[in-house]
Amino acid sequence: MSASATGRRHHVVIVGCGFGGLAAAKALGRAAVDVTVIDRTNHHLVQPLLHQVATGILSEGDIAVPIRDALRRQRNTRVVLGAVVDIDLDARRVAVDTIGLRREIEYDILIVATGARQSYFGRPEFAVDAPGMKTLDDALELRGRIFGVFEMAEGERNPAARRRWLTFLIVGAGPTGVELAGQLAELSRRSLRGNFRRIDPGEARVLLLGAASTILPTYPEALRERAARDLRELGVELHVGTMVTGMDEQGVDTDSTNPRVQRIDAATKIWAAGVQASPLGRVLAKAPGVELDPVGRVKVETDCTIPGHPEVFVIGDLMGLDDLPGVTQVAIQSGRHAAQTIIGRLAGDTTRRPFRYRDAGRLAMISRLRAVAVVGNLALSGFPAWVLWLLVRLTSLGGLKNSASVLFNWTVAFLGRGRAPRVISAQQAFARQAIEVHACDAANEPALSTAAHAEGGLP
Amino acid sequence: MSASATGRRHHVVIVGCGFGGLAAAKALGRAAVDVTVIDRTNHHLVQPLLHQVATGILSEGDIAVPIRDALRRQRNTRVVLGAVVDIDLDARRVAVDTIGLRREIEYDILIVATGARQSYFGRPEFAVDAPGMKTLDDALELRGRIFGVFEMAEGERNPAARRRWLTFLIVGAGPTGVELAGQLAELSRRSLRGNFRRIDPGEARVLLLGAASTILPTYPEALRERAARDLRELGVELHVGTMVTGMDEQGVDTDSTNPRVQRIDAATKIWAAGVQASPLGRVLAKAPGVELDPVGRVKVETDCTIPGHPEVFVIGDLMGLDDLPGVTQVAIQSGRHAAQTIIGRLAGDTTRRPFRYRDAGRLAMISRLRAVAVVGNLALSGFPAWVLWLLVRLTSLGGLKNSASVLFNWTVAFLGRGRAPRVISAQQAFARQAIEVHACDAANEPALSTAAHAEGGLP
Repeated sequence: MSASATGRRHHVVIVGCGFGGLAAAKALGRAAVDVTVIDRTNHHLVQPLLHQVATGILSEGDIAVPIRDALRRQRNTRVVLGAVVDIDLDARRVAVDTIGLRREIEYDILIVATGARQSYFGRPEFAVDAPGMKTLDDALELRGRIFGVFEMAEGERNPAARRRWLTFLIVGAGPTGVELAGQLAELSRRSLRGNFRRIDPGEARVLLLGAASTILPTYPEALRERAARDLRELGVELHVGTMVTGMDEQGVDTDSTNPRVQRIDAATKIWAAGVQASPLGRVLAKAPGVELDPVGRVKVETDCTIPGHPEVFVIGDLMGLDDLPGVTQVAIQSGRHAAQTIIGRLAGDTTRRPFRYRDAGRLAMISRLRAVAVVGNLALSGFPAWVLWLLVRLTSLGGLKNSASVLFNWTVAFLGRGRAPRVISAQQAFARQAIEVHACDAANEPALSTAAHAEGGLP
Repeated sequence: MSASATGRRHHVVIVGCGFGGLAAAKALGRAAVDVTVIDRTNHHLVQPLLHQVATGILSEGDIAVPIRDALRRQRNTRVVLGAVVDIDLDARRVAVDTIGLRREIEYDILIVATGARQSYFGRPEFAVDAPGMKTLDDALELRGRIFGVFEMAEGERNPAARRRWLTFLIVGAGPTGVELAGQLAELSRRSLRGNFRRIDPGEARVLLLGAASTILPTYPEALRERAARDLRELGVELHVGTMVTGMDEQGVDTDSTNPRVQRIDAATKIWAAGVQASPLGRVLAKAPGVELDPVGRVKVETDCTIPGHPEVFVIGDLMGLDDLPGVTQVAIQSGRHAAQTIIGRLAGDTTRRPFRYRDAGRLAMISRLRAVAVVGNLALSGFPAWVLWLLVRLTSLGGLKNSASVLFNWTVAFLGRGRAPRVISAQQAFARQAIEVHACDAANEPALSTAAHAEGGLP
């Protein structure tokens, strides 16, 4: 029995509260529907700024907006913390798991916006040594590792082991990899200057590996070259056309013909090399006529609904449509499009309007005061691009409080050189590093002045 | 062979970089000595503000100053990350363990400033259900629990279970417990207003239990009464003269004669009931003539050195002298006293000047705009005390950047009602809560609309 037949309001269920899900929920805030937003975390995450949490510029609160707070004023909207583990398209209900507590939630209209996760291209075991950059936990884990290795290097007398502690390897030369490489270079050469007595943090080696023949493949050539030049000036080593073929705690092996890059010893490995669509895509693809594209995105009709189910929208990074890029603006615009379609239907408008993406451009920060940006036909670089980057990112934070806090932290980090959120908490990194230390001890000559001994029975 | 005999500079080793260790290190910044600061974390922690991290007002970066950054400009000072696991007073060296890597560091002069940790008064098993409030990890763990239980309550249909999720129990009615109780009351009644649809977070029950006959036992009676009145106005239930006799995941048992308090079902238990001195005290007490006081502090001579070893200072919360209170100012002043004594000795002054604590007063915040404070003979309460609290805490942060960031967050939280750092990360709380959920399921009627089932084989 449909909602209209019983006289109750339509129930719109939105799964995932990234940029797509949040935009859809907000656009439905005044509509005559009941909205339920389901997310596995309690926060909406500003993913494009994760690299700044990992490198100690921003705190996690700066880029994570409590979902309940963001939707507080919408009285038609409720928020459920939990993971959607199943979708029954025929019965029109989703199964939600909240830490083992399972419940079913029925919908009249479903918007699936669970985005994408890290892809290791068939080598999931790489995740142990090279965490990705998709969640707040990824960034906090990385922050612990990054600030931890400088500490380890300071205490290490063996030169080879010290070089290994001070080598940072980033796999993937898209915007995420480029921004992270730039920040790691600035962190070591600028922010940490004077912090150590035995090591010079500026000697840290930052390598950026890309499988494609260029960094930032989706950018125009002039910007790619400018970005490469800026990164090299910061001291980042670029190795494009290079694939990682093996990985262990000590470092990585590559298919490079350059002997310096065939084997790279690096304590910190970071994976920024690609995404795969959320596994909910596979659940939807069980329905007749619904297919996935090669990267696991759900192929949708032009109006963002799935074939045979006009009541089910797929938006954002999970949406397979015209091979649109996995950027914030596609998510936001498709979320709004779904909401407007729903509002139109309630008003009796059954036209299935196709979603048209208005390209809002793209941008990547290289270092403080430098970025590259494409806006329409305009290619910007250097300081003007950085100002644009600053404005775009600031307005994406969804709130005066977070924008002000981020602006403050940026002032401190970019005009000054402070990075306050560099805390290594015991929850982070250290259990993992303990294993690495022992492995490192076994592999090296005994350090000059330290009596290496393995407590706790680790190898 | 002593340092002066060989002509090299004296080596001062400072163990622990809390308020005492940091004050000593800074006071030695221009002295003709080499200084090594050893701490098991990479940050100096502003412990008196931990309750604000736990309740989502401040980020961890706000109250944790990287030690290397704080001491960056002192070229005579190096920082070592690691835990001191042994002290050899005869050979004058300490053994440092950095995640399994052990090394020995020799000293000419040692300052032990490792402070105090939570005491469960012989019931260490309480720590599982009632974490303390001494470290950043404690505060982050609590933050995850606190914001997690509101989520669980929102999804819970069984009224008894919902009340349990919404009950916060604080054991210990000293300043830490009082400040935490006030913040939990404000968080639930003010900051979270409008965030939920099924529960009213303002219905949360906040209980403050104290074993003594009054809250804030070290404060004058007028202030104690004022604080109690302010807390009751906020909706905090006070139960003094009450001891916790048992604890489990569901709640606590007490020795109260009040049937409402004999058994309290509470999902969140927080232990703020007392401290014990750092275990390094026991290591020092192996030396002839060195004794511990009943709470494990090292009894020192009037100049803060231990008997028979004028080259070993014990300062701060680990120092047993005149039963001084465990407050920031004792730590700072004793740290400076040790440094001045050392500088004096280098100049040939062998007078053993006794340490005299200049009472700087004490203060506790009750809620936004309200505090209690004692300064000399002056007892302040309400808004004037709160302004004083604000100024004292702001200036204790040790840096313009942190002070500005904290002031900004306070403006948002106290004048507005936002609390940005409310993130529950997967590293926090949830593994623990999964156990509680299952235990709760087993104990309760099946929830009205949820199909409770135990995955993963938990009880």
